[in-house]
Amino acid sequence: MEHSPIGNTLGHKLDHPLLDAWITDWLAEDLHHGDVTSWSVMPDARQAQGSCVAKQDLVLCGLPLFLRVLARTTSNLKVECLVEEGQAIAEGETLLRLEGEIHGILAGERLGLNLLQHLTGIATQARQFADAVAGTQARVVDTRKTLPGLRFLQRYAVRVGGCYNHRYDLGGGVLIKENHIRGAGSIAAAVQSAKTNAPHALRIEVEVTDFAEMREAIQAGADVVMLDNMTPNQCAQAVSEVEKKVILEASGGIHLGNVRDYAEAGVDIISVGALTHSIQAADISLLLSS
Amino acid sequence: MEHSPIGNTLGHKLDHPLLDAWITDWLAEDLHHGDVTSWSVMPDARQAQGSCVAKQDLVLCGLPLFLRVLARTTSNLKVECLVEEGQAIAEGETLLRLEGEIHGILAGERLGLNLLQHLTGIATQARQFADAVAGTQARVVDTRKTLPGLRFLQRYAVRVGGCYNHRYDLGGGVLIKENHIRGAGSIAAAVQSAKTNAPHALRIEVEVTDFAEMREAIQAGADVVMLDNMTPNQCAQAVSEVEKKVILEASGGIHLGNVRDYAEAGVDIISVGALTHSIQAADISLLLSS
Amino acid sequence: MEHSPIGNTLGHKLDHPLLDAWITDWLAEDLHHGDVTSWSVMPDARQAQGSCVAKQDLVLCGLPLFLRVLARTTSNLKVECLVEEGQAIAEGETLLRLEGEIHGILAGERLGLNLLQHLTGIATQARQFADAVAGTQARVVDTRKTLPGLRFLQRYAVRVGGCYNHRYDLGGGVLIKENHIRGAGSIAAAVQSAKTNAPHALRIEVEVTDFAEMREAIQAGADVVMLDNMTPNQCAQAVSEVEKKVILEASGGIHLGNVRDYAEAGVDIISVGALTHSIQAADISLLLSS
Amino acid sequence: MEHSPIGNTLGHKLDHPLLDAWITDWLAEDLHHGDVTSWSVMPDARQAQGSCVAKQDLVLCGLPLFLRVLARTTSNLKVECLVEEGQAIAEGETLLRLEGEIHGILAGERLGLNLLQHLTGIATQARQFADAVAGTQARVVDTRKTLPGLRFLQRYAVRVGGCYNHRYDLGGGVLIKENHIRGAGSIAAAVQSAKTNAPHALRIEVEVTDFAEMREAIQAGADVVMLDNMTPNQCAQAVSEVEKKVILEASGGIHLGNVRDYAEAGVDIISVGALTHSIQAADISLLLSS
Amino acid sequence: MEHSPIGNTLGHKLDHPLLDAWITDWLAEDLHHGDVTSWSVMPDARQAQGSCVAKQDLVLCGLPLFLRVLARTTSNLKVECLVEEGQAIAEGETLLRLEGEIHGILAGERLGLNLLQHLTGIATQARQFADAVAGTQARVVDTRKTLPGLRFLQRYAVRVGGCYNHRYDLGGGVLIKENHIRGAGSIAAAVQSAKTNAPHALRIEVEVTDFAEMREAIQAGADVVMLDNMTPNQCAQAVSEVEKKVILEASGGIHLGNVRDYAEAGVDIISVGALTHSIQAADISLLLSS
Amino acid sequence: MEHSPIGNTLGHKLDHPLLDAWITDWLAEDLHHGDVTSWSVMPDARQAQGSCVAKQDLVLCGLPLFLRVLARTTSNLKVECLVEEGQAIAEGETLLRLEGEIHGILAGERLGLNLLQHLTGIATQARQFADAVAGTQARVVDTRKTLPGLRFLQRYAVRVGGCYNHRYDLGGGVLIKENHIRGAGSIAAAVQSAKTNAPHALRIEVEVTDFAEMREAIQAGADVVMLDNMTPNQCAQAVSEVEKKVILEASGGIHLGNVRDYAEAGVDIISVGALTHSIQAADISLLLSS
Repeated sequence: MEHSPIGNTLGHKLDHPLLDAWITDWLAEDLHHGDVTSWSVMPDARQAQGSCVAKQDLVLCGLPLFLRVLARTTSNLKVECLVEEGQAIAEGETLLRLEGEIHGILAGERLGLNLLQHLTGIATQARQFADAVAGTQARVVDTRKTLPGLRFLQRYAVRVGGCYNHRYDLGGGVLIKENHIRGAGSIAAAVQSAKTNAPHALRIEVEVTDFAEMREAIQAGADVVMLDNMTPNQCAQAVSEVEKKVILEASGGIHLGNVRDYAEAGVDIISVGALTHSIQAADISLLLSS
Repeated sequence: MEHSPIGNTLGHKLDHPLLDAWITDWLAEDLHHGDVTSWSVMPDARQAQGSCVAKQDLVLCGLPLFLRVLARTTSNLKVECLVEEGQAIAEGETLLRLEGEIHGILAGERLGLNLLQHLTGIATQARQFADAVAGTQARVVDTRKTLPGLRFLQRYAVRVGGCYNHRYDLGGGVLIKENHIRGAGSIAAAVQSAKTNAPHALRIEVEVTDFAEMREAIQAGADVVMLDNMTPNQCAQAVSEVEKKVILEASGGIHLGNVRDYAEAGVDIISVGALTHSIQAADISLLLSS
Repeated sequence: MEHSPIGNTLGHKLDHPLLDAWITDWLAEDLHHGDVTSWSVMPDARQAQGSCVAKQDLVLCGLPLFLRVLARTTSNLKVECLVEEGQAIAEGETLLRLEGEIHGILAGERLGLNLLQHLTGIATQARQFADAVAGTQARVVDTRKTLPGLRFLQRYAVRVGGCYNHRYDLGGGVLIKENHIRGAGSIAAAVQSAKTNAPHALRIEVEVTDFAEMREAIQAGADVVMLDNMTPNQCAQAVSEVEKKVILEASGGIHLGNVRDYAEAGVDIISVGALTHSIQAADISLLLSS
Repeated sequence: MEHSPIGNTLGHKLDHPLLDAWITDWLAEDLHHGDVTSWSVMPDARQAQGSCVAKQDLVLCGLPLFLRVLARTTSNLKVECLVEEGQAIAEGETLLRLEGEIHGILAGERLGLNLLQHLTGIATQARQFADAVAGTQARVVDTRKTLPGLRFLQRYAVRVGGCYNHRYDLGGGVLIKENHIRGAGSIAAAVQSAKTNAPHALRIEVEVTDFAEMREAIQAGADVVMLDNMTPNQCAQAVSEVEKKVILEASGGIHLGNVRDYAEAGVDIISVGALTHSIQAADISLLLSS
Repeated sequence: MEHSPIGNTLGHKLDHPLLDAWITDWLAEDLHHGDVTSWSVMPDARQAQGSCVAKQDLVLCGLPLFLRVLARTTSNLKVECLVEEGQAIAEGETLLRLEGEIHGILAGERLGLNLLQHLTGIATQARQFADAVAGTQARVVDTRKTLPGLRFLQRYAVRVGGCYNHRYDLGGGVLIKENHIRGAGSIAAAVQSAKTNAPHALRIEVEVTDFAEMREAIQAGADVVMLDNMTPNQCAQAVSEVEKKVILEASGGIHLGNVRDYAEAGVDIISVGALTHSIQAADISLLLSS
Repeated sequence: MEHSPIGNTLGHKLDHPLLDAWITDWLAEDLHHGDVTSWSVMPDARQAQGSCVAKQDLVLCGLPLFLRVLARTTSNLKVECLVEEGQAIAEGETLLRLEGEIHGILAGERLGLNLLQHLTGIATQARQFADAVAGTQARVVDTRKTLPGLRFLQRYAVRVGGCYNHRYDLGGGVLIKENHIRGAGSIAAAVQSAKTNAPHALRIEVEVTDFAEMREAIQAGADVVMLDNMTPNQCAQAVSEVEKKVILEASGGIHLGNVRDYAEAGVDIISVGALTHSIQAADISLLLSS
């Protein structure tokens, strides 16, 4: 597979028709009864200034979302961004300065940071994977192992980090697994049925566990073959045998420690569930002074 | 603080008025266009059997939710559970066996597992924290650093793991921080304002950074004092000085490596953001045969 | 309990993450098919002027909400407010003047007034209770006996009127009643269980029906004791016995006619369901000229 | 107008397509964080029995809704109803007995009672109005002065009490008021425009303030004339003059003390905003034993 | 029935409280995963210009809605409208010119056009019906045979086309059909029951299949009689017999080919399901240049 | 393209996670105020029987949805289906018999029929297209020109009729059109960018207007080429030149009268917007007797 210099799809703004509805629900999670501390302790509105600082090295992701949350809760919010979405930031750098009404900032602060820290955590890890395969033809892709309700944003963060997306959902690609094969009777029958029925806009991918299955899938007309739980050596052998006739994806048990071996084996795609299912929140602080 | 033998609140079923609505939204995230692979490859309905197996040592959490998801997508689902919510499970153990219509199982499988693996990841880590402070009077509590949309479930998993909840949201407790103090003029003024205005059902907690502030907070009538970024030694000194007059909470920079030191320092509460913001998904597989 | 000079928490704007969604639903209740009279009778847009007038003495509440509703339906709405939220207004006073496109004003008028009249009705009654206990240490608080869907706004109106809020919902405080006591085995066991399991941010309150129960609750470590259906004399006796060791709340059968007796008995909290469950809409009219 | 023996439309079940969604939202209002008291105090599930008792004379309304709420929160709820929707009940009577899992009953109890007490309050007041005009040809009707989000249920309660509904919303009838008349140029022009444009399924009603306007409205072809703020004597004079050619509605300043005078004046319809905007919650208790 | 010169209710803007929510849902239908083509092919934002052109003769409807959709997805959208809502347009005419950020226009284009083409299709057909009965006293009205979720907009398009609306929903008029008659026992009993119970703001219409039923309905006090599946001749006979005492509606099997015959028969109302249930999308193209 | 014997994907039930929510919204559209006619005319519940009859030749579609709607509104609904989803039915045939409580049937009847008639209209037309290309290798596919909110169901009906689906939404395939090409600089650059960035699960399709563009697209690596507005002869020439190296899709101006010409030209895919944007509702009646 060809693949992209890191971050070249960032010209597009982070948006989704449901994004405002999600923010509403997420704010309601924290503000069901309002901010009791603020209204009981600080009756009067005041301006506050603040700045976000990276407390670790990170690849920034979610900045437009953070600002959208704060803008929802804060009257006359003013923001000066010192860095850009997708940028690698060193520990200690200031990300942005903001100013606005203190009650509003405190109402949106936690949600804004929770999103920013999570998405930055994803992008930061994704960048490590992207760097690990740099110079090879392989792309590291995510999976459907996402956190419920956050898939769109997690996928975006994967791309910001320099990795790629697999099919978005159960309708975003045909991926034939063991159960489908058993249901159809054979790999050949399953692929045939998919070719006969599935939308032509979708490639047909088959998950295989050995070379015989791989050959059967290719013979039947699969566009992509997923090599499940194979070693880098086995993958290299598959690459050599397939000679670019189909796209090859390595999957299963792949982590930062071995991802380069898979990439150098020559596969096109390497899928890594941990890109979205196991995330260390990035350490970013918002310091206010008022 | 007194605290609970692990898991003694599990008699209550995992439920929330919005749970079915959440499941609907989460299923729609994956099934926007339906399960194209299944309908294009396997036209006919069939029964399938399967079992969930732990691929690592874990503390199981989310089992009722997993089953609720599967029941939503699967006609005549039958389940035999071999273990219980909150139970510590060894790698290789079978968690449950299920049977149902294959299209339905495949439609709900990914969401069900995403939830089960995430919540079990939380409970498993929480159990490590709970074990680390076992025998002391300290309870480890979560924070509002949760993943948007998942707070209710993450909190539940923290309890299943044997830790405790801090205030649920901005209305579930009064927590006076530096900004509120600045807004009110002083710690004394802030506490006074909270005592004058806040619902009497909520305790008043003040975040302090040194002993002078701690004393001012206690003098003003705070019920809880949060010792921010203090060392275990400083915490022990605070404990000794306070003599149980208020509840003491240690916060900031606490992890599995040092949590016991804080607990032995004698504080009542130890808050740990990582309980919910940085989660390693537990490895659990669903194997189907059909 | 200390308590607040009336209205000192009004610096905070009336807001909730779901407020726009509520307004949408409420407008849809009245505009399902549109305003048939207006579009069938008055094809052309015109400006109209109007003013809101108090038709009785009242404590104004809901003004920002009224304006938010009108702004949703009305192009280029202009408003001049002559009074302030929380202000005591005499019959005949003009509250505000407004101007805007007539179709829009007529579309939002009924909802805006329904909200304004209900919330002002609450605040007006709450002010009577607040005045009745003025000079004592008691605060009058609301209950969870609110109208479904309107709790956030009703609570706000209670505060605007000069009274206080009890726990917001089933998660906003621990309130142990007879059923919990029976479930736990005894008052002592129930309080102990709450202290062992409940978030430390919440006070523990126990409802008691006699002095023996009160003593058992205090002995077990309750923070608040609710004296259920006691007379003012019994309350005074409880106050005398407790000597400020816990917060005392009087509850049951309390109305404007006897609330002062309870306040003078020395209790800290007096809860009154009628603050939110039995409301006389305030008489406010919107007169348009166009 | 002819009108109905009280309660003859009760054969229809209380239902609405959004009713389950409303219950979900209303439960979420109270159970955002779950029932902290119950899960912290009573870990184990148990059966509880209870009964609802009228603490005042009342006309019962909302019983099916109360049960629907309880059924949503309570496993294996069993209910024995001793009375029927719409029935007049004396103080002290037992309404129903129920049994179910204690945690579920406690989770739904408050919402169920809030609805039952409010709707019963409406029906009880409506019955007083219905009784006050008994034997005349007049029907007492509600208005659009309802509590936001509760119109469908409040209207139902009005009918259960023996009164009638006016137009449901801005699309449920044509009601031409002063502003529409000014917009159209004259009463005649407004009525003409409505006859020309409005759906033929809707009657055309005109609000008038004197007899000249009344005559103009009738002349123009109005189906209904609303006599705004007229005395019973004036209404009688209008009735006499109109000779049943149109439906006559009296409106403005009508209460239990004078409603009979208006009815005896011979008008067909008497509209009373207080039927829905100013409600005294009926006193009904749920006593549990477990 | 009197009726309106075409389009005289267009002074009112096209609006509904749920319109933004509908647009959100409809955009989400198409943008679940974002616009993959645009973000993968065109990383950078650019301005684009475009114009909408009629590819057939049509009556334009939905223009404000089209613009509202585009404004939701497109930063700094500028639009120059060359025609007006409700205007008859000849094939080849340019409707509007627009300019905006290309990613946004492409995101909203399909939904905007789908709405515009459908509503214009309705208005164009409705205009044909309106023209067909021009000069008679009859109005052509729609039915409840609308596409789920689109009733409000379809009804609006019917009016824009010059036809009229029947009752909006099951609460927007009383329409007694055979089943109700059977339920009540007779036409007379059914009408009587409706007069006794239904809101006075609604007319009472009865569907009849012969003259005997018609007479019974009129005798019982029906306001409107629907002549079901009668021929124009039969309708003329009914008109002659009824002598304007009630409104007469012809219904069943009416199309462009025979609608004039029904109108000339003298009925007041002619209802046509095809106005909303069978629509040919109008051919309108959006050409972009960038 | 290979393609499916008609209807071979019907083993899958018609379901979507949002289906119940859609039904709720659609019922609310018609039952905002309840079924006024039924509750005012027929106070008492009764059983009714009915049957659905085809009033024209048709291909049945939406039967499970019709039943799901009726089951939502009707207590103890019983149904006997005499035909199957996807079956060709002759005019006059009875589709099903049903029995249930009359109020419930009347509440759901209109929505159920509106859906059934629309989806059957789609399937009936789709079957005509499928028949027209029978025996060729071409599949007729739908487009994104669907009615807002109904895409999932319309797509299903297309398949039931024997045609196929194009990409579901803007994320269900890469389809490069003129604007993308202009944005990227050239066809080659656009395809290259898509190959570099887009998920590997999606095929890359390019819309071309002449043979030079077609060659450039194929050269650049497109998987599918859409021949826009070409004649059957031009398509045949393209087929001959391409020699199955890519999938060829004919698009633009194709209808029942010429679709066979395109199919015989040898293209793989023929896309027809009218499959979903211009639908004649099928004539199906529900006759009740009670």
